[in-house]
Amino acid sequence: MPSYTGPTDDLQFVIHDVLDVPAQDVPGYSDLDRDFTAAILGEAARISTEVIAPLNAIGDQHGVSLENGVVRTPPGFKKAFDQLREGGWTGLDCDPDYGGQGMPYILSVATGEMFSAANQAFMMYPGLTHGAYSAIHAHGSDGQKAMFLPKMVSCEWTGTMNLTEPQCGTDLGLMRSKAVPQEDGSYSITGTKIFISAGDHDMADNVIHLVLAKIPGGPDGIKGVSLFIVPKFIVKDDGTLGDLNGVSVGKVEEKMGIHGNATCVMNYDGSTGYLLGDAHKGMRAMFTMMNEARLGVGMQGLSQAVAAYQNAVIYARERLQGRDVTGVKNPDGPADPIIVHPDVRRMLMDQKSFIEGARAFGLWGSTMIDRARATGDEEAEAMISLLTPVLKGFLTDQGYDMTVQAQQIFGGHGYIEEQGMSQFTRDARITMIYEGANGVQALDLVGRKLGLKGGKTALAFFDLIKSFCKDNAGDAEIDAQFIEPLKASSKQLQEAAMFFMQSGMKNPNHALAGSYDFMHLFGHVCLGYMWSRMAVAAKSKLEEGTGDAAFYKTKLVTGRYYMSRRLPATAMHLQRILSGADPVMALDEDQF
Amino acid sequence: MPSYTGPTDDLQFVIHDVLDVPAQDVPGYSDLDRDFTAAILGEAARISTEVIAPLNAIGDQHGVSLENGVVRTPPGFKKAFDQLREGGWTGLDCDPDYGGQGMPYILSVATGEMFSAANQAFMMYPGLTHGAYSAIHAHGSDGQKAMFLPKMVSCEWTGTMNLTEPQCGTDLGLMRSKAVPQEDGSYSITGTKIFISAGDHDMADNVIHLVLAKIPGGPDGIKGVSLFIVPKFIVKDDGTLGDLNGVSVGKVEEKMGIHGNATCVMNYDGSTGYLLGDAHKGMRAMFTMMNEARLGVGMQGLSQAVAAYQNAVIYARERLQGRDVTGVKNPDGPADPIIVHPDVRRMLMDQKSFIEGARAFGLWGSTMIDRARATGDEEAEAMISLLTPVLKGFLTDQGYDMTVQAQQIFGGHGYIEEQGMSQFTRDARITMIYEGANGVQALDLVGRKLGLKGGKTALAFFDLIKSFCKDNAGDAEIDAQFIEPLKASSKQLQEAAMFFMQSGMKNPNHALAGSYDFMHLFGHVCLGYMWSRMAVAAKSKLEEGTGDAAFYKTKLVTGRYYMSRRLPATAMHLQRILSGADPVMALDEDQF
Repeated sequence: MPSYTGPTDDLQFVIHDVLDVPAQDVPGYSDLDRDFTAAILGEAARISTEVIAPLNAIGDQHGVSLENGVVRTPPGFKKAFDQLREGGWTGLDCDPDYGGQGMPYILSVATGEMFSAANQAFMMYPGLTHGAYSAIHAHGSDGQKAMFLPKMVSCEWTGTMNLTEPQCGTDLGLMRSKAVPQEDGSYSITGTKIFISAGDHDMADNVIHLVLAKIPGGPDGIKGVSLFIVPKFIVKDDGTLGDLNGVSVGKVEEKMGIHGNATCVMNYDGSTGYLLGDAHKGMRAMFTMMNEARLGVGMQGLSQAVAAYQNAVIYARERLQGRDVTGVKNPDGPADPIIVHPDVRRMLMDQKSFIEGARAFGLWGSTMIDRARATGDEEAEAMISLLTPVLKGFLTDQGYDMTVQAQQIFGGHGYIEEQGMSQFTRDARITMIYEGANGVQALDLVGRKLGLKGGKTALAFFDLIKSFCKDNAGDAEIDAQFIEPLKASSKQLQEAAMFFMQSGMKNPNHALAGSYDFMHLFGHVCLGYMWSRMAVAAKSKLEEGTGDAAFYKTKLVTGRYYMSRRLPATAMHLQRILSGADPVMALDEDQF
Repeated sequence: MPSYTGPTDDLQFVIHDVLDVPAQDVPGYSDLDRDFTAAILGEAARISTEVIAPLNAIGDQHGVSLENGVVRTPPGFKKAFDQLREGGWTGLDCDPDYGGQGMPYILSVATGEMFSAANQAFMMYPGLTHGAYSAIHAHGSDGQKAMFLPKMVSCEWTGTMNLTEPQCGTDLGLMRSKAVPQEDGSYSITGTKIFISAGDHDMADNVIHLVLAKIPGGPDGIKGVSLFIVPKFIVKDDGTLGDLNGVSVGKVEEKMGIHGNATCVMNYDGSTGYLLGDAHKGMRAMFTMMNEARLGVGMQGLSQAVAAYQNAVIYARERLQGRDVTGVKNPDGPADPIIVHPDVRRMLMDQKSFIEGARAFGLWGSTMIDRARATGDEEAEAMISLLTPVLKGFLTDQGYDMTVQAQQIFGGHGYIEEQGMSQFTRDARITMIYEGANGVQALDLVGRKLGLKGGKTALAFFDLIKSFCKDNAGDAEIDAQFIEPLKASSKQLQEAAMFFMQSGMKNPNHALAGSYDFMHLFGHVCLGYMWSRMAVAAKSKLEEGTGDAAFYKTKLVTGRYYMSRRLPATAMHLQRILSGADPVMALDEDQF
């Protein structure tokens, strides 16, 4: 069975040596000194390894079942969920007014990477709850907040997000669910929602559904969509639970992966719902938490890559097969461990260099969310909005590929379920789809985010890289191995953006046909930037002579791999982009 | 549930318009006129659609089970297997002396693509049998051939290949299975083999296992391995079946996919085996059928991409979501079909341009096998040996990626099992692993095949492309869109090969660290070459004014897509290769 170890040293490196979080002028950050974060991360790592990870394969094998209308979770899930609750982990970054720990979001992301790596399907129950908490916290009335938030922070009640319907996925304007106003100010909700993660289960007393629906007579399409709180059990004024609220599970889906999470068809049949935020402004309410939710899914993609990688390393060290062509390494054994083989190394280095770069990218993004949240900084908000589709799309696409590669290292043993490597792949696959399929992320990036503030945010990103390159030039090794390739890739990204601006005016399809490549080009530049920052930090630590020299040297070697072996993908993406819409759109529809 | 339609028009195009098979001086080819191949392909397509494809999801859902020592196949498998047998499909290219149809191998590959696309797990039963047939046909004594081949050609008895043991996968020298000579000239076989596809089942009267084992006292390692025929039931001299032969199924593996095929742990306990070929020359016997077997797996990778693509096209035409940004296409509907969106188009074009290029590549390769088989042509044998790792590695890697992309077009509907898109991905995944994991293919390519005949075969490949470019220059459109990019990519491939030659002498790891990228670079050049040949053929047909003009125009458009959007990957692979072994090998083993 696979194992998992929380990468606390690497998280500490990024938080302190690279981002120097405690020194940033964001409220709450000054408390995050090295010892404090070490304590939090260490405990989260322990829970991940000891409590959550052992349930990962169990969840995959048992899955969930629908019994008499209630979803049963796999053996052990409830007990582990209790431990997560009791430790206060479900409310780590939540508002202390409602029982949260009030910690910065970055700690939630750092611990979340570990929890999710240990068991993605399990962590979706508190994960979805956190999303619903954020929506109610941002848009709820005082009464709604008082009624729902304390129980959701503690996960005594969990939450869900209900957007999709059979005929309506990305295009939410096609929604049919109806919300009819009642005399008491509530709404009667009727409709069917599909793909509702954590839609029902036996680990909490109530499930608080956030449901998008249309109030009859409102504007057509997406502009007429409102958001409602629909509890599974009516909550009485004294906070106790009343009757079932016409909410039922129509079906639990059989899926490729995340078997431990209940993906439900939810039927609402005249259910009582409470308008959350303004009528017809449901999409706006959803958007406020979209950056967080999407960054969270990006981190899930990364987390599966981490778990898969760790097990691939163990296997590559233990599995004896063939001999090192440059000289036998294990003369007393029947063969050398496969980690000696260059192509196995290539796979491990691909994974390692992606993982550490992506981790830094996710944590860097989290600092922007903390800044925007705590100070209302508009530039931070704009920058994370620009980067969010990249974080979601690039990290999940690449994260998935890395799980496939980790599985490959096991050969045939990776294909049988017994070893657990297949599960990482099957679980990671959903991250490319949910919370906006990655093609939609690319569309969001090119269609909306690139033009944010008239393009100023994109320019600010390029300036950031330019300044970094300028400020850190001078060290011959860093220049050649990091700064120069970073500059070149950033220039390619600018060239692509320029092409979109110029050709997109003639035909928007020129930009749309290149959007996916642009997202990946952007992702590589971000990881190149992260690796350059990590290299500078590692080098400076080495020169200071403090800390673990082997760790910092490894950073430089791993970063060099990324810059020389992964970053060259940018030129290919640019070339594809510059070929424009023509090759993509030239075929008649009936010729496919 | 997914559907499948055999791509007979495209197969005909490649066989006749591109390769002009009937005109090639290969025995048997002159019979393959257009009407004849149309009849064969049409009937194979019908069986694929009507008989085999409907069992694909059933096989996935039911899987196989071990009951009282016998493997039970999914409902419907036996009846379909009977139909395949009765139609003579299992012996299509087999020796007429043993009941085969004696058709050229290329027809087996063309029909096999369709059968495998319809149901990969099911087709592995006759597929493995064909492999065992080939080995016995090539190396068996007259008595062995007479005893086993007729029943294997008809698939009354099926076959298996037993190589892997728990401690021994790629490195077959670590084998522990023993073959002790008996007084009657047979051997007593004892050992455990794992991952034995089609290891047992209820669709045939006997299973003929080909088992690699060591005769005690023979040479150490791989040089002491011999190949044995070990029937499940002893075959008596009169051809009837006798006792069980100490062969038992230890376990049926739970796998990520190909659930309909029994992947068995096989235990041999003093089983009677008959030496096939010479003692200690088992590996040589295996190698003789390796090109075919690996090309076959490459075609499996392609076939899953085809099946997934066809269903993605149907979905993209039916699913209404969003509007074409350049103008509404379906004004009477609530939204436009998603095939209007450029990023959906990109995914479909990626798939289509891969599929058609790969199909041509596989069929081109088959002509070399036919030529080598029928005429003993050493150059054809060498060329297919060079191309085999590319066919296997590139087609399965890319084929898998294409199934992932097809699944992506379905969004959330692609992740639930109900739609069947997950199965294509899960089934395709094994093709990257079995019959030599793709990293091993890359090693074979760079370590052995590139130096075949002192490098003359590789040079012959480059000459082939050079001649083609020269012979077909002159048409401005073809030059710009096909010949020039092909030339450039072929030059990059040569540069990479040159780098290996020069740097590999200093350190073999320089070549090994770039082997995987080299395999992909090579694959792209092959598909670029195929697309250029197809473009020339299509253009010539258009100029002649014969045939289906829309079909030929579509070819040119699809080819142009490949050349401008897919082929640019070659530069990236070259750049990675040229970075050498250093970034790959620099890390200490304990720093992963």
